[in-house]
Amino acid sequence: MKRRGWAVGIDFGGTNVKIGLLNASHRVIRVQVLASREVGHPGGFVDAVVQTITALTQSVGLRPSQLRGVGIGVPGLVDTTRGIAHGLTNLPGWHEVSLRRLLEHRLRCRCLIDNDANLYALGEWRCGAGRGARDIVCLTLGTGVGGGLIFNGELYRGGADAAGEIGHMVVDPRGRRCACGSRGCLEAHVGTAAILSIARRAIRQGGGPLRTLAYQSRGSLTPELVSRAARAGDVAARRIWIDVGCWLGRGVANLVNLLNPERVIIGGGVSKAWGLFAPTLKQTVRGQAMGVSARSAKLCRAQLGNSAGIVGAAVLVWNECGDKGRGAD
Amino acid sequence: MKRRGWAVGIDFGGTNVKIGLLNASHRVIRVQVLASREVGHPGGFVDAVVQTITALTQSVGLRPSQLRGVGIGVPGLVDTTRGIAHGLTNLPGWHEVSLRRLLEHRLRCRCLIDNDANLYALGEWRCGAGRGARDIVCLTLGTGVGGGLIFNGELYRGGADAAGEIGHMVVDPRGRRCACGSRGCLEAHVGTAAILSIARRAIRQGGGPLRTLAYQSRGSLTPELVSRAARAGDVAARRIWIDVGCWLGRGVANLVNLLNPERVIIGGGVSKAWGLFAPTLKQTVRGQAMGVSARSAKLCRAQLGNSAGIVGAAVLVWNECGDKGRGAD
Repeated sequence: MKRRGWAVGIDFGGTNVKIGLLNASHRVIRVQVLASREVGHPGGFVDAVVQTITALTQSVGLRPSQLRGVGIGVPGLVDTTRGIAHGLTNLPGWHEVSLRRLLEHRLRCRCLIDNDANLYALGEWRCGAGRGARDIVCLTLGTGVGGGLIFNGELYRGGADAAGEIGHMVVDPRGRRCACGSRGCLEAHVGTAAILSIARRAIRQGGGPLRTLAYQSRGSLTPELVSRAARAGDVAARRIWIDVGCWLGRGVANLVNLLNPERVIIGGGVSKAWGLFAPTLKQTVRGQAMGVSARSAKLCRAQLGNSAGIVGAAVLVWNECGDKGRGAD
Repeated sequence: MKRRGWAVGIDFGGTNVKIGLLNASHRVIRVQVLASREVGHPGGFVDAVVQTITALTQSVGLRPSQLRGVGIGVPGLVDTTRGIAHGLTNLPGWHEVSLRRLLEHRLRCRCLIDNDANLYALGEWRCGAGRGARDIVCLTLGTGVGGGLIFNGELYRGGADAAGEIGHMVVDPRGRRCACGSRGCLEAHVGTAAILSIARRAIRQGGGPLRTLAYQSRGSLTPELVSRAARAGDVAARRIWIDVGCWLGRGVANLVNLLNPERVIIGGGVSKAWGLFAPTLKQTVRGQAMGVSARSAKLCRAQLGNSAGIVGAAVLVWNECGDKGRGAD
């Protein structure tokens, strides 16, 4: 029995490798999560992926070769045409790896690789907050601040598959020092490191719920903890999220002026604090962006949560390998 | 005799209306320039355009209805689908004008309107500095700083035909006040007004070639005069162009990180000082943009000069009304 509409989407992150099996109706049927550290080097990764995909497909009575294809999102620079990972952020040993060739040889089905932020945008566009729109900017807020762009109803990758570095847009040339060497990058103001560094300073300087929560968590400070403190009325923590909204708003206003997108979708771990920073974000964009573009851009939260990466990777397969079988299963 | 490959391109600027007749090989055969002030209101504009196009086509043995079409670039917001000018910058009386309908009724051929910066980019892409590239950012430097974007080999207009407002990207939140109300917009640092305001201050403060040239020109200060002073060794004038290169470089670095274009094309009146600001521009982009994107983006000067607008408007016609007749004439 052929079920050519089915696809596997892989989200290769710094911590986990999520592998999902999706049916022709774009529904996630099975998910398996592996620890990135254990499968980190290319050989181990290919072995683990082949084994997992074989098990996942078997569990629904399929063979890997019966899949429409396998899509993989990786954190780093890729050559999407040749299926090569040039190098992966925070994962040593990945240099010019022909991931597509290695996997296609073992799985005997089409394999496609792309940058994780691109696939995040593709997933939200086809199955999440971007459905029905033609021009989208998607931001992922976390340790890094990434971006994916959909223009004229198509994923936009740029001349060297490197587009979307929204995190390194300079929003203040005299701003905070960024890990990239520049000063005042958006990431240096709204990335996890910035949020935690400002929170640590606030804890040293004052009391309040933030200090209590940090003490209770034994020093393992996270953006979630800063959110909880803000919701519990901590003034410094609230200020942190207002500042995040303000800096993010400045970056988004630039994007809105430049690209006049129909939607700006905000996702990633830090976006869980949406309710705390969104009012300032929206106010800043309205204040700084030009009239028509500001009015026509809807700022919204990503909808796919943790499965955005695997859904996006599967959408890549349906897009590039045809989607005629959709719903035919 | 039908010569369907021929097109008319109109560049409707604040000072002049340039009307060009182009043959199927994309060559400008005839040009007529009218003063915008004299034909400024919609009725007068349509009359003058119809009359000029009739005369231009007659001079090569054609009727307007034998053209592939007429393309018009206007300085302001347009609805490209319905052919309506919502309003034009610096030209009163243009509010929700159905320019396409008015002209098609009189000329009996297809008429298309678009924003002037979009058509500038389209012209440079098909016939100028952007030939052969797929992803381009085009900047026009003058009183305003405009932008046109070609993505995935297609003109990108955004959700409300308003994309490309590169001039209002904030490059320094504590920077110079901009006419739009914001602070530190790219236009507030590299637009004609900024250049002249800084030059005037320099003239008040010191001597040198800039003061002499300004005196000789009886106070009619222009960017060209600031360039001449810089080339004659004026220190303050050279500093002005270095600063233009630096601010422009910061804006372009943001664009390069975000969009990873193959080419960034700089045109418009102020770009005549290319030799004076390009070294700093290139150095700033190399210093601030991310490795791969910085290496793959070629920064270059526009090639079409004064005819970019009319060529771009004609390219719009060939693009949207088919180009099968190209070279067939």
